[in-house]
Amino acid sequence: MEYFPSVPEVPYGGPRSDTPLSFRHYNPKETILKRTMEDHLRMSVCFWHTLCWNGRDIFGEDTFARPWLVRSDMEGQKAKVDAGFELVRKLGVPFYSFHDVDVIPATDSPKEYESYMAEMTEHLGRRMEEGGVRLLWGTANLFGHRRYLHGAATSPDPEIFAWAAHQVRHAMKATQALGGENYVLWGGREGYETLLNTDLRQERRQLGRFMRLVVDHKYALGFDGTLLIEPKPHEPTKHQYDYDVAAVHSFLSEFGLLGEMKVNLEVNHATLAGHSFHHEVASALALDIFGSVDANRGDPQLGWDTDQFPAQTDEMTLALYEILNHGGFSSGGFNFDARLRRASTDPIDLFSAHIMGIDTLALALRRAVALIEESTLSSFVANRYRGWSSDFGRHALGGDCSLADLSKQVVESDLRPEPESGGQEHLELAVHRTIYR
Amino acid sequence: MEYFPSVPEVPYGGPRSDTPLSFRHYNPKETILKRTMEDHLRMSVCFWHTLCWNGRDIFGEDTFARPWLVRSDMEGQKAKVDAGFELVRKLGVPFYSFHDVDVIPATDSPKEYESYMAEMTEHLGRRMEEGGVRLLWGTANLFGHRRYLHGAATSPDPEIFAWAAHQVRHAMKATQALGGENYVLWGGREGYETLLNTDLRQERRQLGRFMRLVVDHKYALGFDGTLLIEPKPHEPTKHQYDYDVAAVHSFLSEFGLLGEMKVNLEVNHATLAGHSFHHEVASALALDIFGSVDANRGDPQLGWDTDQFPAQTDEMTLALYEILNHGGFSSGGFNFDARLRRASTDPIDLFSAHIMGIDTLALALRRAVALIEESTLSSFVANRYRGWSSDFGRHALGGDCSLADLSKQVVESDLRPEPESGGQEHLELAVHRTIYR
Amino acid sequence: MEYFPSVPEVPYGGPRSDTPLSFRHYNPKETILKRTMEDHLRMSVCFWHTLCWNGRDIFGEDTFARPWLVRSDMEGQKAKVDAGFELVRKLGVPFYSFHDVDVIPATDSPKEYESYMAEMTEHLGRRMEEGGVRLLWGTANLFGHRRYLHGAATSPDPEIFAWAAHQVRHAMKATQALGGENYVLWGGREGYETLLNTDLRQERRQLGRFMRLVVDHKYALGFDGTLLIEPKPHEPTKHQYDYDVAAVHSFLSEFGLLGEMKVNLEVNHATLAGHSFHHEVASALALDIFGSVDANRGDPQLGWDTDQFPAQTDEMTLALYEILNHGGFSSGGFNFDARLRRASTDPIDLFSAHIMGIDTLALALRRAVALIEESTLSSFVANRYRGWSSDFGRHALGGDCSLADLSKQVVESDLRPEPESGGQEHLELAVHRTIYR
Amino acid sequence: MEYFPSVPEVPYGGPRSDTPLSFRHYNPKETILKRTMEDHLRMSVCFWHTLCWNGRDIFGEDTFARPWLVRSDMEGQKAKVDAGFELVRKLGVPFYSFHDVDVIPATDSPKEYESYMAEMTEHLGRRMEEGGVRLLWGTANLFGHRRYLHGAATSPDPEIFAWAAHQVRHAMKATQALGGENYVLWGGREGYETLLNTDLRQERRQLGRFMRLVVDHKYALGFDGTLLIEPKPHEPTKHQYDYDVAAVHSFLSEFGLLGEMKVNLEVNHATLAGHSFHHEVASALALDIFGSVDANRGDPQLGWDTDQFPAQTDEMTLALYEILNHGGFSSGGFNFDARLRRASTDPIDLFSAHIMGIDTLALALRRAVALIEESTLSSFVANRYRGWSSDFGRHALGGDCSLADLSKQVVESDLRPEPESGGQEHLELAVHRTIYR
Repeated sequence: MEYFPSVPEVPYGGPRSDTPLSFRHYNPKETILKRTMEDHLRMSVCFWHTLCWNGRDIFGEDTFARPWLVRSDMEGQKAKVDAGFELVRKLGVPFYSFHDVDVIPATDSPKEYESYMAEMTEHLGRRMEEGGVRLLWGTANLFGHRRYLHGAATSPDPEIFAWAAHQVRHAMKATQALGGENYVLWGGREGYETLLNTDLRQERRQLGRFMRLVVDHKYALGFDGTLLIEPKPHEPTKHQYDYDVAAVHSFLSEFGLLGEMKVNLEVNHATLAGHSFHHEVASALALDIFGSVDANRGDPQLGWDTDQFPAQTDEMTLALYEILNHGGFSSGGFNFDARLRRASTDPIDLFSAHIMGIDTLALALRRAVALIEESTLSSFVANRYRGWSSDFGRHALGGDCSLADLSKQVVESDLRPEPESGGQEHLELAVHRTIYR
Repeated sequence: MEYFPSVPEVPYGGPRSDTPLSFRHYNPKETILKRTMEDHLRMSVCFWHTLCWNGRDIFGEDTFARPWLVRSDMEGQKAKVDAGFELVRKLGVPFYSFHDVDVIPATDSPKEYESYMAEMTEHLGRRMEEGGVRLLWGTANLFGHRRYLHGAATSPDPEIFAWAAHQVRHAMKATQALGGENYVLWGGREGYETLLNTDLRQERRQLGRFMRLVVDHKYALGFDGTLLIEPKPHEPTKHQYDYDVAAVHSFLSEFGLLGEMKVNLEVNHATLAGHSFHHEVASALALDIFGSVDANRGDPQLGWDTDQFPAQTDEMTLALYEILNHGGFSSGGFNFDARLRRASTDPIDLFSAHIMGIDTLALALRRAVALIEESTLSSFVANRYRGWSSDFGRHALGGDCSLADLSKQVVESDLRPEPESGGQEHLELAVHRTIYR
Repeated sequence: MEYFPSVPEVPYGGPRSDTPLSFRHYNPKETILKRTMEDHLRMSVCFWHTLCWNGRDIFGEDTFARPWLVRSDMEGQKAKVDAGFELVRKLGVPFYSFHDVDVIPATDSPKEYESYMAEMTEHLGRRMEEGGVRLLWGTANLFGHRRYLHGAATSPDPEIFAWAAHQVRHAMKATQALGGENYVLWGGREGYETLLNTDLRQERRQLGRFMRLVVDHKYALGFDGTLLIEPKPHEPTKHQYDYDVAAVHSFLSEFGLLGEMKVNLEVNHATLAGHSFHHEVASALALDIFGSVDANRGDPQLGWDTDQFPAQTDEMTLALYEILNHGGFSSGGFNFDARLRRASTDPIDLFSAHIMGIDTLALALRRAVALIEESTLSSFVANRYRGWSSDFGRHALGGDCSLADLSKQVVESDLRPEPESGGQEHLELAVHRTIYR
Repeated sequence: MEYFPSVPEVPYGGPRSDTPLSFRHYNPKETILKRTMEDHLRMSVCFWHTLCWNGRDIFGEDTFARPWLVRSDMEGQKAKVDAGFELVRKLGVPFYSFHDVDVIPATDSPKEYESYMAEMTEHLGRRMEEGGVRLLWGTANLFGHRRYLHGAATSPDPEIFAWAAHQVRHAMKATQALGGENYVLWGGREGYETLLNTDLRQERRQLGRFMRLVVDHKYALGFDGTLLIEPKPHEPTKHQYDYDVAAVHSFLSEFGLLGEMKVNLEVNHATLAGHSFHHEVASALALDIFGSVDANRGDPQLGWDTDQFPAQTDEMTLALYEILNHGGFSSGGFNFDARLRRASTDPIDLFSAHIMGIDTLALALRRAVALIEESTLSSFVANRYRGWSSDFGRHALGGDCSLADLSKQVVESDLRPEPESGGQEHLELAVHRTIYR
């Protein structure tokens, strides 16, 4: 069955293309800065939001009436998957991503869960082969079932912790079987609703233990993908333990997990945490824990995760500038963890939204490359810190001098240093000129 | 000279006292939970906001016309200090705190700076002895002088880094000489204004180096106080490196400084970072880096540091509940890093504000002790995590089981765990009943 | 059938009561400032959140398993209503409130809707009579059904506008039949998701027209309750037209509706709009459009409507202080538009939550009365503006002087006015002393 | 004296210009949509931020060392003005704007104030004539002097109200004499710090009176410029009475001032109030009170007015799209109420910043014109509301039908309307394609 019969494969039409469903910027096989655009961006369609959500929000019922959501049994699940692969194929992106429960019927039975996962892994594998589609990452949904009311790894009930282990085991097995390049852990409810009922130290310890079990399991399995933690500050919880890049780094440090796990950054999670997305990307790169990106955008006036499709070329350009400067993605990529607006009920809206997202990233890539080639930023930065390459700078930063030594030198030389301009507007102008041309 | 001639020493009057300038809750020598209130709370008057600020804000000129700010030379500085000690004495709190530049004339000369600090250390020492007042902490202001435009330790100019070392050396020397119990480092401009001109990795490295120099200097000096970092997310900077407790823990971990430095938490900094103050206190305690508190409050509708005197008994009760449960302060205490409103131009307002702050903390202490004694919270929490003391729980958390083992057990026992109620409203009601009685 | 067999009617136990399910502050028949507490507070249980919500959130499935939600047909609806009346009776509050769809089965048929409403109005009437319970307000849910995707009165489709009229007609009819004291209009989706597809002027005009139709209908019907608009800034929409008190006043002014409609203020809606609840109450009173209150609280760190049961005695005290100073409620009251936390799965939690809310308001009432009696605030304010009662003040404010006249007087008298202290901390201390005793 | 000797007049260089200090998009005399770019944009340099601020912030001292700020007497003021005109001339923008106290020495004497204003009006007039520069607006600073501690028009002291009248009289006189096209009233401290000491009704009445006096004075004077109120939600106050467009409309309605005053919208004030700038522009246009714009941008992570130079082409494009659709500016224009970052200490930074701002607006104008010409948005919107032009729609919106009539029609026709897609992503994609090309 074809779910989007009126939509052909979306072609690249060039920057002035007037075909509505075409790309103006995304030309997958075009080489730029030594890689194809496809390989730079490694874009992925997310099955959760895109296929499983039917338009319900906290104040209103379903609005989408997706034909692939009519049945929820295994046949219904396969229909959903088939719709997903049709979408991926027509968009021409190389990857998809999924949660365990995105593709199997609901069940409380551990055995049924296991057999559903096994059956669906085969189905997914077939569809991937047919479509030449790859798996960016798999994951387990450890927050939707009512048992995860208080979290999964951080549940006060060790049997629930064990159920989470059960799901991760099988979701990782599926991910490995399908050649997934990463396995993601999003701590949906790993946090607290109120500190009044919470033993923070205990819950951190549980989470550390769980992550260690996952890491060990990865090695036991021989899975060679990357493990990713996805920071989010809150929602649905009051506070999530993997709040932001700094909180994840703190956590990985405490439990000896640095080097074993990286971060999957989501744009809207960054902004909910009070950071620019640029900040989170740059911080993760500076801390050597950058892994992958969930590409979306938030609404600067709204305090929840709106998960809108990305359109903010300026923000994504700066993120890509950082990523490219550090060598680009290795196992990660850009996954569209984005939702249509609930009122976008026309199936074509799914295509408009993805085309906007894909072209936003493609254009951001082109602009980031231009920023690198023009080198205004990199020259300015290099010049700005030049003092640290002087004798005095190297001595201060790395020598065996003491605080008192430095103080004495200040007195002896009667130092009265004059700061230079930070040149912020000069650099902003350079970026503006490069992005908008 | 007496600066507040109309104000006597503020007495404890008991919970129904009608004397305007009296305490209703703070009875310093009263013993409660094995310590005097004075020793539990270890309150401190902050010289910066309280003595040095003359009411100017970003949109308007001075409003306070403090008599002790008429002259800015050394005589003027001594007048300011004297006004401060009069205030401390009349409020009956045991501590004060200060920045280097709070008490000396402005100068660009390293030598003059040094000699001013030496002279003022003597003056402060005399006044402390006369008044029986102690020093909670000293610090250096590394953000006000124009040389610190781009930060101090994280300045792109190593000579500015060295100037910061010069100031810290002498501020710490003064702190040691005056028997200070802590030395604080607030990273006022240690952060960035724009990532466009910033080398994050380089600046983190500089900051790590600076802190290491400070730690080594402390040992070299034989200073036995605690070193404290004060988290703040932003303002005046776009982003400050010591954003919140998690960021500080991440930083201390990266640079091998865990165990050497603790945090000085400020209420309004916590809330600007998107956390409840309760969260930051509980997190610092869970990570073993809790040190001291700057007591104030913010305005939930305003996005800058309003630094208002504390009045929020509920918030401070929960913070004290956590602190007491972990054994109370060691070297830290409650410092009033709070400012009058700019329109509170009557000198008496300084007393009303401090009395409100002191009584808020005193009442919060009494209520926190009641929470501990009633034990509704602690019993609930203990019971909630009881599963982790079972064989299964201990096995899951600490045994040599693997993820696969847990998964298998879920299947074998066909586990279908039912979560219990988190009882949030039940606990909130218990807290409400204890605080409001 | 009894839904809460283990819970007796909740008694007043006095301020030191140790009975878990008892009131410490709410003594309904106690007279205070010339009215009984019951008549001052006019509290109401809200059927929507309390009875209809089963614990689902945007990330997870139902958690509550309410026995009265097993069936959704008319029998199921009656069971739900009966559970509600049992709750109201045991809590001893005088009022309840409901939406049309809270108490009838879902239907797309206009006729079925009408007949369901008629049948249920009778059932509700019987239960009210049996229990001595009154209706604070009725309302129609114009946001849950998918037809209201783009709003109801502001839908681009006039047939949807007409459907909204249909619902309001029957919901108001039920409200009138049941002796409801108010009728509420909450503009759940009366706003926009994106300005790109929105004709603001057209939608405002539709909303103005709808409200005019509602007002006229009220008179046609002879319904003598108050019409209330409930401001909310956003959620689920990006922007709601009844954003805050000022926006509602602007709207009522534009469409000639001042005097016809008042506001139903919700605490958490106020704070989401960037205002203190105190501000919204004081503003509505100053603009003569204050009507009623939805009592809950938000979470200062979260950017969505958490609808928590009120516990913030200080905030509610100041709101009640304003309300009492303006003569108290007329037709309005305090409705608990509050939800349990999703993890509070024990039916007893419903009682703990309501008891906390009721006692919070009862204590706030007692404290607000104390503030009035002590008169520190009112005296200070009266004195502060005394200048406006002087000749010069009356002349400036109300005389026939011109701007130029005033300017000339400034020059002639060489005026150099000195502002007095605003005394903020002095007043905050007075409030603190009154609330915490 | 020339203050920027190294900077020539900034030329238009076209979209690929590599000259650092040149415009790529602003070509003042180019005609586009029937007006020159200069006439469309009516850009203005603001003397306050640009000339008077020396880099001080709340945490640190001056950083800029402007040569024109060395003296503060009348000679110093004239130097400042001369620097300003040099800047305006070299940037080639047609307008400037100023506050009274931006250009005169500080004084407490009403007479001196008057004579300073008279003298400076002459000096400004000469410079305007020489440079062919026009005045977009004048204003009085009613918030910086300590007498305005509690506001100006809303001060509790009527003598302070009168002083404000004195300043407005002379600032308006200067504005008229200099041919200013608007006169602005920004309520810097017209609001409250705490409701505890505030009589809201009294202060609103004072503000209404003041505005009425200003309006009457305008007519008495024969000044034919537009009066503008500038909304801002808070800062420095806790709450400002002209919070946002809705609050200003509510205020103008209450005091019968609709038609007499319009709004001067500032981008960063809009976002601090929780609105997109697009929203505030569209709302002001829909309410017929749109006047002028202070062009800057805020920082989405910071909660204060950062007043950064505009660079956000997408946001300004949508604003210009609305403005052009309503006929463009009449007396208003784009004033750069923007500040350099404190660390941008190089005088050239002033030029980089203005060039960025000017080019951002110029490009936004070009893109907005493209949006109008392509008409995707306008066609979609027209089609979306087509139902309101049907018989049923006209009947519902404007006929003499009642609520009951509409309800009956729903039943009779058994209406079951199906909503159409809102097409948000489709429209966002169209905007993206137009802006980024």
